[in-house]
Amino acid sequence: MDWLNNTIKAPDDFYYKKALTRQACLTKPPGSLGLLEEIAMRLAAMQKTETPSIERIWVSVFAADHGIAAESVSAFPQIVTTEMVKNFVRGGAAVNVLSRFVDAQFEVIDVGLLQAVDLATLVADRAANGTANFAKQAAMTDAELNIALTAGKSAVKRALEYNSQLFIGGEMGIANTCSASAIAIALTGLPIDQLTGAGTGLDDKAIQHKSQVIKNALTLHQHSLDSALKTLQYLGGFEIAALVGAYISAAQQGLAILIDGFISSVAALVAVHLNPQTRDWFFYAHQSQEKGHRLVLQQLQARPLLQLDMRLGEASGAVTAVPLLQMACKLHNEMATFEQASITTH
Amino acid sequence: MDWLNNTIKAPDDFYYKKALTRQACLTKPPGSLGLLEEIAMRLAAMQKTETPSIERIWVSVFAADHGIAAESVSAFPQIVTTEMVKNFVRGGAAVNVLSRFVDAQFEVIDVGLLQAVDLATLVADRAANGTANFAKQAAMTDAELNIALTAGKSAVKRALEYNSQLFIGGEMGIANTCSASAIAIALTGLPIDQLTGAGTGLDDKAIQHKSQVIKNALTLHQHSLDSALKTLQYLGGFEIAALVGAYISAAQQGLAILIDGFISSVAALVAVHLNPQTRDWFFYAHQSQEKGHRLVLQQLQARPLLQLDMRLGEASGAVTAVPLLQMACKLHNEMATFEQASITTH
Repeated sequence: MDWLNNTIKAPDDFYYKKALTRQACLTKPPGSLGLLEEIAMRLAAMQKTETPSIERIWVSVFAADHGIAAESVSAFPQIVTTEMVKNFVRGGAAVNVLSRFVDAQFEVIDVGLLQAVDLATLVADRAANGTANFAKQAAMTDAELNIALTAGKSAVKRALEYNSQLFIGGEMGIANTCSASAIAIALTGLPIDQLTGAGTGLDDKAIQHKSQVIKNALTLHQHSLDSALKTLQYLGGFEIAALVGAYISAAQQGLAILIDGFISSVAALVAVHLNPQTRDWFFYAHQSQEKGHRLVLQQLQARPLLQLDMRLGEASGAVTAVPLLQMACKLHNEMATFEQASITTH
Repeated sequence: MDWLNNTIKAPDDFYYKKALTRQACLTKPPGSLGLLEEIAMRLAAMQKTETPSIERIWVSVFAADHGIAAESVSAFPQIVTTEMVKNFVRGGAAVNVLSRFVDAQFEVIDVGLLQAVDLATLVADRAANGTANFAKQAAMTDAELNIALTAGKSAVKRALEYNSQLFIGGEMGIANTCSASAIAIALTGLPIDQLTGAGTGLDDKAIQHKSQVIKNALTLHQHSLDSALKTLQYLGGFEIAALVGAYISAAQQGLAILIDGFISSVAALVAVHLNPQTRDWFFYAHQSQEKGHRLVLQQLQARPLLQLDMRLGEASGAVTAVPLLQMACKLHNEMATFEQASITTH
């Protein structure tokens, strides 16, 4: 797993400054396009161009099952992971509809469903038949962690073969907010109840139970969680590890990344712990309604683009934000300058 | 101007409830698409259909000059109103780029530039050569107010001839945040300094001067501002009056309306004062960085879709939010149901 530490180059400041100069000449009061200006300038720096664009978008949804589901921490039964994978493959899920709308390339990767599923377009990069129950033991072995991280790296390779300009990762895995909360608590030291939420729809009593499960697990593993990688291994899900691998690999390859919701943001936090420069390549799509997301975004010093009370995961929030990135580029490239439009500026 | 009081029908509750039932069957945890669910349900009720859509979008930008500009309340000289109108007609402004992106029909209406401009595609519905300076007298006469309100109604007529499913109004007029702030203060009774901001980019000292200009004008006209219509007449701009007329007319015709930024929201507030049911047809695109916008949105009990620190006006914020409405419809119409996808829900 040494590749995780490979150098990540910063986006090119020369093109950032060129974009900044252009923004000041466009026919609008300086700064009046708000975050859309910053998006265009950052994309110019990432793409090393004066005319950034987001035309080719890649969406990889990683799916896996979680041993921790045995502790009754989700509102849905575990079989739903596989059922939703079938829904993704058939094109019926929210992320499918959204991906068609923005014309994104979409793929689903099985990184460790309980049982392999035979579906023609499903990518199989299986670490195991689900993680182990982290209430009782480490969620994954070294070898399994390696497979899951590499699954993310492989997805980025496919994205680059398509000449993608934006990588979006998503996840599906019943009980994975429990895993994500545990990781976030271990990494940040923030109180359990501030980072543990309703997931797909738990009531208050069930959330309390979920908090207790996490508390016990953190006590059980307290002497093992001495690095971000160990935290991922002991508490993680395969799809979360795949996201971590994908984010670091995309940043290493100079590919812009759009982060989805709570679970993806926790993966982003792990990635930043492992290789801090990863963050230079992140855009944050939205703040979800899942309780801990705001705090995890704070830890990442992130300003999310959307706040629509979404809480679905599966990359749905990220794909919803894609048109904002596209419009930011179009505005940057196509608006007239004050000089072109003969507009008085003083 | 009696037509302003004509009945506005509520969106059809039968279709709202049908949409609500469908949302509960789609393959996602209930409520997990957040505001996108509510958008789809409201559009279903407005369009009286089970499959709402936003394919045909109409953007009318109303432009006019302001007598109050003589009081040095803007960072830009008055000639910029006409210069920007030419930029709109040539397609170089932010709203042009965004309208092309969402494939919206776009038009510019001269409701009262200082001087008429001869441009083939510019719609001329001129109330006068700019408003009078409301620091000294009423901004417009009865007859001028009538022309400006009717200009908005005419724009909606054109939108409906195109079978539009969404009406977006925008504005251009140097010094028009001064006019909009004065109207908002008169209608809400909120403190002047809370509703007076930087507009296109005033510094603190200039904002203080602008507040003083507004304070004096409100004192001068205090006995005349006894209705929302009089407030609009005494303090308004022609483009603000046109937006008011357009919003009320669109609501009367059952056409969904997407509100832009500060000035458009003040027009929306006037419209709601004149005919309260107008609000049932509003979506609020964004909260701008202009100081008073948050409070005006509060008065409208509005929850804006975007908060991107935009502050450009000209309908730019509204058009930026269009893809969210479109995605909300697509999700509603195209997602698989739990039954179709054979997903276990208990």
